[in-house]
Amino acid sequence: MGDRRDLSESTLAEEIVYEGKFLRVRRDLARTPDGGETIREYILHPGAAAMVPFDADGRILVEWQYRYPRREHFIEIPAGKLDPGESFLDAARRELVEETGYAAAEWAPLTTIHPAIGFADERIDIFLCRDLERRAQQLDQGEFVDIEFVGLGWLVDELRAGRLTDVKTQIAVHWVERIVSGAWPWPAFERFGSG
Amino acid sequence: MGDRRDLSESTLAEEIVYEGKFLRVRRDLARTPDGGETIREYILHPGAAAMVPFDADGRILVEWQYRYPRREHFIEIPAGKLDPGESFLDAARRELVEETGYAAAEWAPLTTIHPAIGFADERIDIFLCRDLERRAQQLDQGEFVDIEFVGLGWLVDELRAGRLTDVKTQIAVHWVERIVSGAWPWPAFERFGSG
Repeated sequence: MGDRRDLSESTLAEEIVYEGKFLRVRRDLARTPDGGETIREYILHPGAAAMVPFDADGRILVEWQYRYPRREHFIEIPAGKLDPGESFLDAARRELVEETGYAAAEWAPLTTIHPAIGFADERIDIFLCRDLERRAQQLDQGEFVDIEFVGLGWLVDELRAGRLTDVKTQIAVHWVERIVSGAWPWPAFERFGSG
Repeated sequence: MGDRRDLSESTLAEEIVYEGKFLRVRRDLARTPDGGETIREYILHPGAAAMVPFDADGRILVEWQYRYPRREHFIEIPAGKLDPGESFLDAARRELVEETGYAAAEWAPLTTIHPAIGFADERIDIFLCRDLERRAQQLDQGEFVDIEFVGLGWLVDELRAGRLTDVKTQIAVHWVERIVSGAWPWPAFERFGSG
């Protein structure tokens, strides 16, 4: 933090004010740095893992999904929420198979992002993965996902044209372009058994 | 959309199930592409504008804020929500002054992002701005924001080290680095009177 000011807030009272099918909303009374009080409302999110899966030709596996809140289709890298007690890497390995029907033997951490710090505690860890093997897709009820392999160049063109607006996907493509072009180093991959 | 499959969902019923001080949660019954029904819950968000303000030396104005949902301080580019009926650009010009105390005479659109397509309809338009003039900061009640000017190189180092996890900020820095390095072109700036 260096010489930056401590603007921390402390929790005076907390309450779950909405518990729906997917969303939980928390409403806290917090002590502000000036000694005052304020209300802080936010979504409780379990965290998520996202991944950039490369095939043997360097093509990238992406998803085509309709996102109801925006009433739009999006190109996205695969991602999914953590189950209780699950690590980000374990969630990534599980969600890749469930959402796309592919398993990956080699995994490397790319970066961590916080998508909505104003109103959610969500954290997404993004991974690279490779050495893919076809399994079977196992989508949740109400989940409709088409998959395709695309070139990195196409993804960068879509990003520059303003058509890759999903943040986890855009951030992953920025990193991967820099890595594949040699500007930034590859992260270290860990190999897992196919068991 | 090309030859991709239409996975659109239609709204069968809609309801506001939580209306708090800041957050509004909507819960819809939707028709899925297979003819079934599902519940879609999400946050209604007014949209936001964010900006990368450059001073005459090319330094970038950033904010230091404590974000209660994550219980962490973040380095962020300035941003704020749209008022009813306001355009993204008008919100950007207003929020820059309110949050930082600087006005900018020249503005250019950078890109649009959707931070949380799984559970919110939020859209953020990011702008570049320059030709700054000192005014007076006008923070909302419960808002505590310190500002500083930093170099682009420092921001890129923070990003690569995994310390620039706020998505609007990370995406803006990726774009600005490519523009300042000459890899991507500058967008066209529009000049506004100081009135």
